Amino acid sequence: MRKPRRKAEETREDILRIADALFREKGIAKSSIADIAQELGMSPANVFKHFHSKTVLVDAICDRHINHMIGRFDTLDTPAPPPEKLGIIVRRLMQAHLEDIRENTFFLEMIFLVAKTELESGFHYRRLIEDLFFDLIRDGVEAGVYHCADCRATSRYVAASFASVLHPVFLAHETQAELDERLNGLVALANAALQSPLAK
Amino acid sequence: MRKPRRKAEETREDILRIADALFREKGIAKSSIADIAQELGMSPANVFKHFHSKTVLVDAICDRHINHMIGRFDTLDTPAPPPEKLGIIVRRLMQAHLEDIRENTFFLEMIFLVAKTELESGFHYRRLIEDLFFDLIRDGVEAGVYHCADCRATSRYVAASFASVLHPVFLAHETQAELDERLNGLVALANAALQSPLAK
Repeated sequence: MRKPRRKAEETREDILRIADALFREKGIAKSSIADIAQELGMSPANVFKHFHSKTVLVDAICDRHINHMIGRFDTLDTPAPPPEKLGIIVRRLMQAHLEDIRENTFFLEMIFLVAKTELESGFHYRRLIEDLFFDLIRDGVEAGVYHCADCRATSRYVAASFASVLHPVFLAHETQAELDERLNGLVALANAALQSPLAK
Repeated sequence: MRKPRRKAEETREDILRIADALFREKGIAKSSIADIAQELGMSPANVFKHFHSKTVLVDAICDRHINHMIGRFDTLDTPAPPPEKLGIIVRRLMQAHLEDIRENTFFLEMIFLVAKTELESGFHYRRLIEDLFFDLIRDGVEAGVYHCADCRATSRYVAASFASVLHPVFLAHETQAELDERLNGLVALANAALQSPLAK
């Protein structure tokens, strides 16, 4: 009896799962497409059919991590005034990143690759974060607490101002106490700017 | 006639100069202490006497770049009001980083190593930047333009808020127009916060 042909989507998922596990075990640089194919009992050519290069594979894995993380953020309905909510969101995002870094030893290597080649997942992540801030800032403006002329642009700058507590390159070797202090300072800074009628 | 014994400081400088050139040519990962020693016509043991590991060498080179860059920033005396001066300083810092990245192909690799191992040069850089902002913010408070309860802490947060236009990991693949726009937005945000009596 012939083995039933597997769906492309399933094969893709298998490759991502095995690649993720291999990267975790050996790092990205030391894992080859051939290694991944061998673990799956398929030919390297078959893996290449789904992912044209290791970079494309890394991009897809990075995107999986991003979606997994952002998936935990549908709780924006917490009943709190916008300035407080801003702190809650940034704190949750930072903690999610910290967990990811602790769980995945190859995380920094992945981020470095993404930063070096400007992969699609990097853009995707930035858009998700900016949307999160945009919704919050718009709510704040509607509540008369925040002021901004162009809320879309302002949310981009607010998102950017939190880079040093949200980008993994800054999180890897800081203590939790340092990060918490910096986060509180940045939230106070953003709130002071957003609450000021001077904010553009 | 015996060759006069060279001063340790000179040897150290030679090693740094040659290592810098080699890193630029081949990248850090592909340059070994043995390669550097060979270029200098000395034994690897002699190089190790000055730098106990490649990481220590990378740290020293990174520090050289930082000092070189910060050396160009003694022009804080520009006669401009503090909010405008803030923009001038951040713009100059960003341009200096961009030049360094363009000139040194190994820059991102170096930053990645520094971020991964939290080298001394990383701390050194952060202190220099925070001092720069502290001086400016204190001037602004004295001029009655800025308000802050704890200017030392505030300057740390202001410095942190500019990470996405000052840290090389963000600069490598952005267009100049994108960076300029983000920089202007972040400067406006920081100025709105610093000028607001709400700022802590």
